[in-house]
Amino acid sequence: MARIVEITDLLLREAQQSLLETSMALEDVVPVFEDLDNAGYWSVECWGGSAFNACIRFLNEDPWERLRTYRRLLPKTRLQMLLRGQNLVGHRNFDDSIVNRFVEKAAVNGIDVFRIFDALNDVRNLKASVEAVKKAGKHAQGAICYGPSPVHTIAVFVDLALQIKQLGCDSICVQDVDSLLKPQAAYDLVKGIKQKCGSDTLVSVHTHSTAGVSMVSLMKAIEAGCDIVDTAISSLALGRGHNPTESLVAMLEGTGYESRLDMERLHRIKQHIANVRPRYGAFDNQPIGVETEIFQHQVPAAVILNMEYQLKGQGTPHLLDQVLAEIQSVRRDAGYPALAIPASEILGTQAMFNVLHGKYAVITSEFADMMLGYYGTTLGEKNPEVVAKAAIRANKPAITCRPADLLEQSWERCRTEATTLGSNGSDEDVLTYAMFPKTATQFFQSRAAGPKVIGRESSELKASSELAPVANEGGDPSPGPSRTYIIRVSGEDHKVTVTPAQ
Amino acid sequence: MARIVEITDLLLREAQQSLLETSMALEDVVPVFEDLDNAGYWSVECWGGSAFNACIRFLNEDPWERLRTYRRLLPKTRLQMLLRGQNLVGHRNFDDSIVNRFVEKAAVNGIDVFRIFDALNDVRNLKASVEAVKKAGKHAQGAICYGPSPVHTIAVFVDLALQIKQLGCDSICVQDVDSLLKPQAAYDLVKGIKQKCGSDTLVSVHTHSTAGVSMVSLMKAIEAGCDIVDTAISSLALGRGHNPTESLVAMLEGTGYESRLDMERLHRIKQHIANVRPRYGAFDNQPIGVETEIFQHQVPAAVILNMEYQLKGQGTPHLLDQVLAEIQSVRRDAGYPALAIPASEILGTQAMFNVLHGKYAVITSEFADMMLGYYGTTLGEKNPEVVAKAAIRANKPAITCRPADLLEQSWERCRTEATTLGSNGSDEDVLTYAMFPKTATQFFQSRAAGPKVIGRESSELKASSELAPVANEGGDPSPGPSRTYIIRVSGEDHKVTVTPAQ
Repeated sequence: MARIVEITDLLLREAQQSLLETSMALEDVVPVFEDLDNAGYWSVECWGGSAFNACIRFLNEDPWERLRTYRRLLPKTRLQMLLRGQNLVGHRNFDDSIVNRFVEKAAVNGIDVFRIFDALNDVRNLKASVEAVKKAGKHAQGAICYGPSPVHTIAVFVDLALQIKQLGCDSICVQDVDSLLKPQAAYDLVKGIKQKCGSDTLVSVHTHSTAGVSMVSLMKAIEAGCDIVDTAISSLALGRGHNPTESLVAMLEGTGYESRLDMERLHRIKQHIANVRPRYGAFDNQPIGVETEIFQHQVPAAVILNMEYQLKGQGTPHLLDQVLAEIQSVRRDAGYPALAIPASEILGTQAMFNVLHGKYAVITSEFADMMLGYYGTTLGEKNPEVVAKAAIRANKPAITCRPADLLEQSWERCRTEATTLGSNGSDEDVLTYAMFPKTATQFFQSRAAGPKVIGRESSELKASSELAPVANEGGDPSPGPSRTYIIRVSGEDHKVTVTPAQ
Repeated sequence: MARIVEITDLLLREAQQSLLETSMALEDVVPVFEDLDNAGYWSVECWGGSAFNACIRFLNEDPWERLRTYRRLLPKTRLQMLLRGQNLVGHRNFDDSIVNRFVEKAAVNGIDVFRIFDALNDVRNLKASVEAVKKAGKHAQGAICYGPSPVHTIAVFVDLALQIKQLGCDSICVQDVDSLLKPQAAYDLVKGIKQKCGSDTLVSVHTHSTAGVSMVSLMKAIEAGCDIVDTAISSLALGRGHNPTESLVAMLEGTGYESRLDMERLHRIKQHIANVRPRYGAFDNQPIGVETEIFQHQVPAAVILNMEYQLKGQGTPHLLDQVLAEIQSVRRDAGYPALAIPASEILGTQAMFNVLHGKYAVITSEFADMMLGYYGTTLGEKNPEVVAKAAIRANKPAITCRPADLLEQSWERCRTEATTLGSNGSDEDVLTYAMFPKTATQFFQSRAAGPKVIGRESSELKASSELAPVANEGGDPSPGPSRTYIIRVSGEDHKVTVTPAQ
């Protein structure tokens, strides 16, 4: 008897983010739903991560309404979302009143499986959401954010898995956001988790195909006992995306492992997605070949692309290699967070400023917060000199508590504000507002116009993705001569505030 | 101590054929030679297969002169070529006087490793070339042409490997021309060969990345003891090409296997090839995604593309699926040859005619020859009814001897003809003439103009690749109302003669 390997398909969410830098219009994916719902997937990832923001920002579409549509049209399927721990689907810590309500409403509207991660691997940042998911009676999948470093050994990640399991998680995900998980590490990690957490612990592996190695990592993970792997239908796979679903099914033939998937349905899904993908040509970021350079610098391709763009804008494109090297240094100073959102952008931007303006001559407010513990704690020791500079720059002390413990319970305030600013009165609208106050307010005003079909409006959208100073959104006003930039990475806008160090 | 896995890079030959449908100009690859020569490869494949024809046909360049250049500029490197057994670098059986001289001259001009295969896996078709290679004191690598069928089990391929080794081969190659080799089969096959032929038998594995699975197959082959694997530098890899060299190196980290390759040199090679590749944009056939459909029909993508093109030309594009199904039937009737050159084209064309004109209502002369044993014997039993039809169509009997035994020793005749038709008097020119009499004659006349840089003349070349009736070249005149087509597949021209069945 072959052991079943379960599959989570990413085509409705992360595959779009990785390859198209946006979300596809609902009408372009609905035709595959019958096949998706009956193909035999363990789950379909369809919500959360950057897709929430993309929905209100680019598609003029209510993300909650989209979730309800998925629920209605995929009645047999576990719907899965990516939740950034205490950051939810945004880029800053939210207080527990928002976390609890967000999870509750995501569950009510249709999410079955919550994959929860924190870029710093600070388990305290997962706790509130895991508890909320369990309270809602749903599946809590706690994720290790995989990024090797001198202090991040396999044993450390295995310990982390145990801590995550002890939060009450139903499964553990090895989440490799950057295609860094090599085959032997995949094997050792899954084996270690199964040994430490119990062989009945459900283990899922998520990776990217960027470096051309991770299909083998999935095979080795499966050999080590991995239960679920993430793939994407082949017409929306490879490059900086994920490994192709059909290839994974074929890979298993004769190995003693097999999937439940119906290849005929997969081929139909593939064909339809291949047919509609060209509509997103303006966003389609299909590289030729692979990027094994990522093993050296660990910097996600999207961050590199953004740096190239900015360095070119400054007339200093030749500085890229220096910036990539500087990221290593900044990451070390920051205690080795994984280069996942939001840490990847925060460290990348700080490294760029170090190269352009001198080492820590300019410190971004986000980097200062990270150094001072306001995103959580890191496994590596932070550079005390840089912590001291950050404290001066931010004019506040370093903290060691769970960052969300310092936050005001803002649910009631958000509800009042959202109502004033045009929400429809639902709790879901309040949550949308809490995540992205400015974008949500604009969305509330334009919602009646209905979803935009961006596949046809590519030139317009492209223009809006350029780097431009903007007003602050929902953050503290920056002091003095600071400027705030919106930097677009992977279809997400990241606010970066620059103030000369004092 | 990690076991060393050796690498053969395909970037100078087959990677170009698979992805660019042509050969790159020498000037575009020379800048990487210093790195190639010092990177630590076991060998670099650079000659033979379709590249010989491409040289004289598209580049107006002497393939022998190119080989001598490789030899001069890659002094430390084993140069490897692909030889189609008794077909050499052409599409029909040559007599032994040509085979012997061709191998001798290839060795003298620089080839160290001869990979020798036959699409029918008729070991008798490898014998003369293997003996010639040994006589020249070079490395003879005998290849199994991998293509599963009801009669082609792992055990059968392992037996074949032993027969090939017993010819006197220095190594065995598992040659998967169509990306059909799945991981478990790769493991079982290599393991079986090592057990049957001796664990000290050098085993090489060649595969394509078409289906997105074969990187895993290479890992499993290595685990089973495979000594050498074929890859291509990543900027000329993936799609219908091969697995990326840098990814393979990265894949091995920590596994107990390692390559000798210098990653810094690989990155420089990658970068240069990435820079020049756009010059071949008109030929660049980079598909998005993978083609797992190949596991169903086993038909190489290039053959499918050609069929689509021809069916469209006939106003019957909807017949493609029928033709793909018919290929299975024709392959069964023919005794299950592997779908490699020339069998892939011969069976594909016959299948198309069966669908268009009725089952075996029209039989091509090449298919008749194959049914009657003039390409060699197949492992599967042939359909006797179709053999009978072929005998009537071709007006000759079926044979069971080694086909080349029936051929005139043509060396002296070719020499006389080549001299008359403008050769420079060298044996190499005689061989060029023997391979492709018409193209060679044209080349002899235009040689003085020097190599063409096709990267700049894409539109002109594209036009010449279209299907068009042509005069026969070097074959028997076809009787009655026959027509001869040149069908271009993978940058090679295949002559197909069509005569109504009698």
